[in-house]
Amino acid sequence: MNSLTEWLEETLLKLNLTDEMDYTHGFTRLSYTKEEKQAHHVFQAIAETLGLDVHTDQAGNLWATWLVNENTPTIAVGSHLDTVSSGGGYDGVAGVLTGLAAIKRLKDQHYEPQKNITILCFASEESARFGVSTIGSKAISGLLAKDEVASVKDAEGISIQEAVESFGLSWDKMDQAEVNTNRLESFLELHIEQGTQIEEHGAQIGIVRGVACPIRLKVTAFGMANHTGTTPMDKRKDAFASIAPLITFVEEQAHQLNEAASLPLVATVSTGHIVPNVMNVIPGEVELGIDIRSVDDQLKKELAQRIQQYCKEIESKRNIRVTVQTLVDNDSVFLDNSIRNKLSEIAANLNMKSLNMDSGAGHDVMNMAHKWPSGLLFIPCQDGISHHPREYASLEDLVTGTKVIAEYLRQESGGKL
Amino acid sequence: MNSLTEWLEETLLKLNLTDEMDYTHGFTRLSYTKEEKQAHHVFQAIAETLGLDVHTDQAGNLWATWLVNENTPTIAVGSHLDTVSSGGGYDGVAGVLTGLAAIKRLKDQHYEPQKNITILCFASEESARFGVSTIGSKAISGLLAKDEVASVKDAEGISIQEAVESFGLSWDKMDQAEVNTNRLESFLELHIEQGTQIEEHGAQIGIVRGVACPIRLKVTAFGMANHTGTTPMDKRKDAFASIAPLITFVEEQAHQLNEAASLPLVATVSTGHIVPNVMNVIPGEVELGIDIRSVDDQLKKELAQRIQQYCKEIESKRNIRVTVQTLVDNDSVFLDNSIRNKLSEIAANLNMKSLNMDSGAGHDVMNMAHKWPSGLLFIPCQDGISHHPREYASLEDLVTGTKVIAEYLRQESGGKL
Repeated sequence: MNSLTEWLEETLLKLNLTDEMDYTHGFTRLSYTKEEKQAHHVFQAIAETLGLDVHTDQAGNLWATWLVNENTPTIAVGSHLDTVSSGGGYDGVAGVLTGLAAIKRLKDQHYEPQKNITILCFASEESARFGVSTIGSKAISGLLAKDEVASVKDAEGISIQEAVESFGLSWDKMDQAEVNTNRLESFLELHIEQGTQIEEHGAQIGIVRGVACPIRLKVTAFGMANHTGTTPMDKRKDAFASIAPLITFVEEQAHQLNEAASLPLVATVSTGHIVPNVMNVIPGEVELGIDIRSVDDQLKKELAQRIQQYCKEIESKRNIRVTVQTLVDNDSVFLDNSIRNKLSEIAANLNMKSLNMDSGAGHDVMNMAHKWPSGLLFIPCQDGISHHPREYASLEDLVTGTKVIAEYLRQESGGKL
Repeated sequence: MNSLTEWLEETLLKLNLTDEMDYTHGFTRLSYTKEEKQAHHVFQAIAETLGLDVHTDQAGNLWATWLVNENTPTIAVGSHLDTVSSGGGYDGVAGVLTGLAAIKRLKDQHYEPQKNITILCFASEESARFGVSTIGSKAISGLLAKDEVASVKDAEGISIQEAVESFGLSWDKMDQAEVNTNRLESFLELHIEQGTQIEEHGAQIGIVRGVACPIRLKVTAFGMANHTGTTPMDKRKDAFASIAPLITFVEEQAHQLNEAASLPLVATVSTGHIVPNVMNVIPGEVELGIDIRSVDDQLKKELAQRIQQYCKEIESKRNIRVTVQTLVDNDSVFLDNSIRNKLSEIAANLNMKSLNMDSGAGHDVMNMAHKWPSGLLFIPCQDGISHHPREYASLEDLVTGTKVIAEYLRQESGGKL
């Protein structure tokens, strides 16, 4: 085992706050919790060992900078360290880790950059806790709708504002995390693919063109709660039985739209809340959360419209009220052509096969791309499994990613070996 | 307003710990909570005002007795004071209230009984907190499977054992609440109908023949959690989409069985738990709770079998694992013919129209009936709405119930006016 591989393995464990990657229940470092904070402390310690200057901004993002000169441009790479509940140890971590490893590699090679290089560790990327994603990178990019989200609460009733403040930040000053356009020259994120396309194409890395941002709907069916034993079948307004066919409909329609379309679409009824959810009461209210994604924004809108229409049919057929609320409707983001071309060239020069592809998942880079030329690099993850304890990327793939980032940073920062 | 009506109205409010019956969020006095305990304290105070001897047994049931002589038989009536979450103020309360009111009526008439009369206030009738119902009456009847339920937990992770102990009882001594057969002569419960049959038949009271006890199933679908954005439609094992057709199936089959059967059947998918239940993760596991009831036990079993079969079809069609667990399978309980006849006669003598009927809901009486000749009397509740803030029974109907119980107690206790 060479020293880069060893360093990657050791640092992977450290960033995951563990000495063993294989856990039945995976890793849980939700947004703005003490677990995310702990991982940030570890990141800071590692970055400082590499000789980087580390500071935390007003949104809790960490900036670890190889500082050449305050007046030269800065090249940034990075990702995040928070996870979903019982998630894997690579989603986010892989990007932060390979960024740090690329710095180590360049330093080991006695490289001297001409521009500043920053490894960004974004705060609170996952929507698992609050239903709001990429909070840290939104703050940096000036996209955070602070007033809209302040009172959004987690399952325990803690608001984002409260969580941010107990993370040691000031809610009032969170806007100040926004960074002027001229402070960064570009941004590159590395992430695990969370799919199987790279592997299926026999490639080692994926170079992303478009990021499929979601339409998210909240569908609520209002029936009438009543006793399960005493309410005859023909006198019910069962919210669950009424809305259940929608779950099947969403899946069927997604398949149908995929058959005709050139770009893929995915749609999922991913959440459900049944009220009151007790054995002897007919469900009086059911709320379903639907996540629709495609790089083709029209395709997403088409499905959202069909869902609206189907809910109207349920309303009149079952004589209950059904509401459809659009929680999120973000157009897809396309990444910088010039960075994509550079990454392709670097991969070719390193004798790696790369795949041009789209991303079905959102990442911090989609916010950064609103303001700076940005790129997104994928490394494979086993069987495409992600947001799950069995999420896995090989050390070999982490080495591959590190080499591409190191070479990219070398070329972009205009220094000499 | 005569004094019985006034007393019923005042006491109804007291037992519900309120000064107003009409609340948007209804009443919440879950099993073995301080709210149930508060209602028990009120019951005790009222019973003592009526001159009854009150004691609490080892399961938390209250026995309020008009004591003639320790060696004479005891006639018992009663119900419970706990509620579901956001329930109504009549389910259980009506039975306790009319029992107390009947005593008041007899005492106001200077009646002198020859047998002891006990108003029983059973602890913890509703299954809303632990999924286990009629705990108090099971303990009295020797039907409580203490070891099986000790570790059953509520939504906050508190076990029945812990709840019982924080209610001021000893878990070890709970068995001692069992009562010898010879201590009681008979038991009568009054309850709101939780349906609309009495009203539809133009009657004032219902006299129950059979109590439809439930079969309860827990169906669990085990799919594979994965990222909603990166997992193509044809590579998913979505537990929610896989099992959703079962919700429709249960409703359809219940309708179908009703068409052919002489006794009605009801079936409800009343609970659902989606794991992990977050917007960007495909549901990896879904658990559905199904409640099936009919006085015809064969009909219940037929539907349970069809559900088993349908789950096998889902398993093979969707290539996921589906398990079906039987949580409860209780045969229906039939009430004492002699008590039914007495109640019919009393109603006729009081110029009330009574309806012979079955009960779709379980009640404490179904446990008592295993050991003692027992009866169940229904009063109407508006629109059949129950387990809901809009649950309502009129004072007139409470007066009706009180009169029947008073006359029943008079006849059974063999005293003189």
